[in-house]
Amino acid sequence: MNIVEIIEKKKNGKNLTDEEIKFFIDGIMSGNIEDYQTSALLMAIYFQGMTIEETTSLTKYMVESGEILDLSKISKNIIDKHSTGGVGDKITLIFLPLMAASGIYTAKLSGRGLGHTGGTIDKLESIPNFKTDLSIKEFKEKVKKYKTAIASQTLSLAPADGKLYALRDVTSTVDIIPLIASSVVSKKIASGANHIILDVKYGSGAFIKTKKEAKKLSEFMVEIGKRLNKNICAVISSMEQPLGRAIGNSIEVQEVIEFLKGNIEEDLKELTYTLCFQALKKAEKYTDKEEAFKYLDGLIKSGKALEKFKEIIESQNGDSTVINDYLKFPQAKIKYEVKSSKTGYVSDIDALKIAKACKNLGAGRNKKSDMIDYSAGIYLTQKFKDPVKKGETIAVIYTNKAETIKESEKLIVSAYEITNEPPQKRQLIYKIIE
Amino acid sequence: MNIVEIIEKKKNGKNLTDEEIKFFIDGIMSGNIEDYQTSALLMAIYFQGMTIEETTSLTKYMVESGEILDLSKISKNIIDKHSTGGVGDKITLIFLPLMAASGIYTAKLSGRGLGHTGGTIDKLESIPNFKTDLSIKEFKEKVKKYKTAIASQTLSLAPADGKLYALRDVTSTVDIIPLIASSVVSKKIASGANHIILDVKYGSGAFIKTKKEAKKLSEFMVEIGKRLNKNICAVISSMEQPLGRAIGNSIEVQEVIEFLKGNIEEDLKELTYTLCFQALKKAEKYTDKEEAFKYLDGLIKSGKALEKFKEIIESQNGDSTVINDYLKFPQAKIKYEVKSSKTGYVSDIDALKIAKACKNLGAGRNKKSDMIDYSAGIYLTQKFKDPVKKGETIAVIYTNKAETIKESEKLIVSAYEITNEPPQKRQLIYKIIE
Repeated sequence: MNIVEIIEKKKNGKNLTDEEIKFFIDGIMSGNIEDYQTSALLMAIYFQGMTIEETTSLTKYMVESGEILDLSKISKNIIDKHSTGGVGDKITLIFLPLMAASGIYTAKLSGRGLGHTGGTIDKLESIPNFKTDLSIKEFKEKVKKYKTAIASQTLSLAPADGKLYALRDVTSTVDIIPLIASSVVSKKIASGANHIILDVKYGSGAFIKTKKEAKKLSEFMVEIGKRLNKNICAVISSMEQPLGRAIGNSIEVQEVIEFLKGNIEEDLKELTYTLCFQALKKAEKYTDKEEAFKYLDGLIKSGKALEKFKEIIESQNGDSTVINDYLKFPQAKIKYEVKSSKTGYVSDIDALKIAKACKNLGAGRNKKSDMIDYSAGIYLTQKFKDPVKKGETIAVIYTNKAETIKESEKLIVSAYEITNEPPQKRQLIYKIIE
Repeated sequence: MNIVEIIEKKKNGKNLTDEEIKFFIDGIMSGNIEDYQTSALLMAIYFQGMTIEETTSLTKYMVESGEILDLSKISKNIIDKHSTGGVGDKITLIFLPLMAASGIYTAKLSGRGLGHTGGTIDKLESIPNFKTDLSIKEFKEKVKKYKTAIASQTLSLAPADGKLYALRDVTSTVDIIPLIASSVVSKKIASGANHIILDVKYGSGAFIKTKKEAKKLSEFMVEIGKRLNKNICAVISSMEQPLGRAIGNSIEVQEVIEFLKGNIEEDLKELTYTLCFQALKKAEKYTDKEEAFKYLDGLIKSGKALEKFKEIIESQNGDSTVINDYLKFPQAKIKYEVKSSKTGYVSDIDALKIAKACKNLGAGRNKKSDMIDYSAGIYLTQKFKDPVKKGETIAVIYTNKAETIKESEKLIVSAYEITNEPPQKRQLIYKIIE
């Protein structure tokens, strides 16, 4: 077996065998296969695709390229939720306390990643002293004791995926469904949960732009997960508009706290509850959606979910007094109100433009080594369907970089579509693949 | 401009601009573009192709990446002939003395390359003391004085092509028409001749397998050459069967000497004369094919061409007594006769199988550093259309490696197709593109 023949085979549209894919992953790990050969193969895969069988083999060997967490001694039902990423996506921070309050174990490894705003880890780190850099031993102990823990992703899980991803990023081979699927699923499998819930987003604010692609990716991931013996499902939803009203880091955590206090944004609730319902089904607690939603409402109203959030913060060394004193969060020096240029109804808010504005303001990273300004962000005072008057505030900018305000304001104004008539309701959840 | 965007553009089927191609070649030469990015782009080019405009830009910047020989002071008509490579292809060694005898200047830089048998340089080096490692100054002086010289290719010509080729070889991106075209034409342009005659072969013994591809490649090369101000043409011929009877190194030179002495193989003559006629036309000596062929016949009969061959050998320090004493060539210890297993007519001799047998016997290289056994080879005693009897000798093996004989014999026997009826005549020359 040699890599040039394997590249040739894929180039000619033939399927690779399990042994050939093992040879490829082994070669990446040992360094016997050169990066320039890997990137040629990745580009051939872009054009010729990979079957479910090939992608399953790829995923399996990526998992086996590193450590695999064993959480089976903690509980027979451990849930992991993964989002493909969106603008204003703070769902994990609501999902985890709701699960813990339901008595369901969750174990969450999350990446810092690159994006217009920080990842879940960055958002949590906006809470003073919150520690996400847990050892595997600490992580397991916390999951056992508090029913949940959240830690920054360790390099020892699926390292082959890490190597592949680094190369894809600089060779224009990121947007390949089977590679995205095996990247996500391999990391989830290596993380040790037996139930996996995927939150797959499409639209301007997601890296997948269309429903069709989101469906294809979801089907791929669910099928691979099943073949590798995981109880897995995917909830596909729209990311045309930001989720909730807060986009940034600390202001997203504040929105989470408000949610847990009962000040609930409808879109956030719909998607979070849908994901929670999938988990409640997997843990065999609820089979009826309406009953499950009512139960979740109860966990909010009774304060149990908020109590669990406090417990999570404290268990990871964070300052839980932020819950009742938002001034304990890092504060932006500048607060700037963006006004509407028209009178009418908000019929669209382009998530990508809002995200780009957020990054300008300091809330995201360009390079892995970039520092994030936790206090920077945008709060959407007017959302979809809301009436607005010309000159009225539609959004508030938080930043420490005065020079970025003008450009961000322009982006925000152009992101808002204002029409004379109120818009039709839009569907948030498109499909559940299980 | 950045390389990831350029890869993305080509991946999406868009054409690259002249500036983008310059950026690419500059980046390869400066090392700013990584090999893994280059190989991803090459694979994208495999799938999306390149236009004539893109390929012309690529060729131009590959030429400009290194030294360009200036031969214009020697003559206003300097011819370079290039073959895409075939089995038993000793045409350069007949072409050059015929040209010199016609008073036409030729300047030939040739590669050692990899193949089942050696390249033209290796064949010449089977003549004791023949020196091909000429400096550019020596090369020019000899062309001026003897009307021809042949030297091993220097790395300083079109070095970007050298870098690209090394990468293509190990990433399964060799078989891409625009890249083959720009590789050939850039080296020819950098070599300084103003007239270029391309000998393009297709079939089992060539790296291009079909007429259609050969035509496409030829059209590409001729068009690029014209756009870069060269007087260029391509003769497309079949390489289904070996050219002539000798395949190897020193035995090919012996066949050349026999040819120049008047013992002429018809297929060798047809292709060599056709290429010579193209040169005679370019030098404005003949416009009628029949007259030109008669003239060339005269150069053989009068001994003038042989005399020129002797002069070439002596001008490059070789031992010209080989012309009348073939024992001065390196001699193989083993001479082994391969017999026919059937009675009938030779209706096909698979060039690729003969070539593989030749390599087994020691006549070719696997790696650039491999040594060639100049004495190894195969002489086809029976050729296309010849009658054969069962048990009669069809070919003679020359080797120093006894252990390779059995496998080579098997290959030779399977290469020969023997039928009851004599075969139809086959067309050697398919088309001339000019």
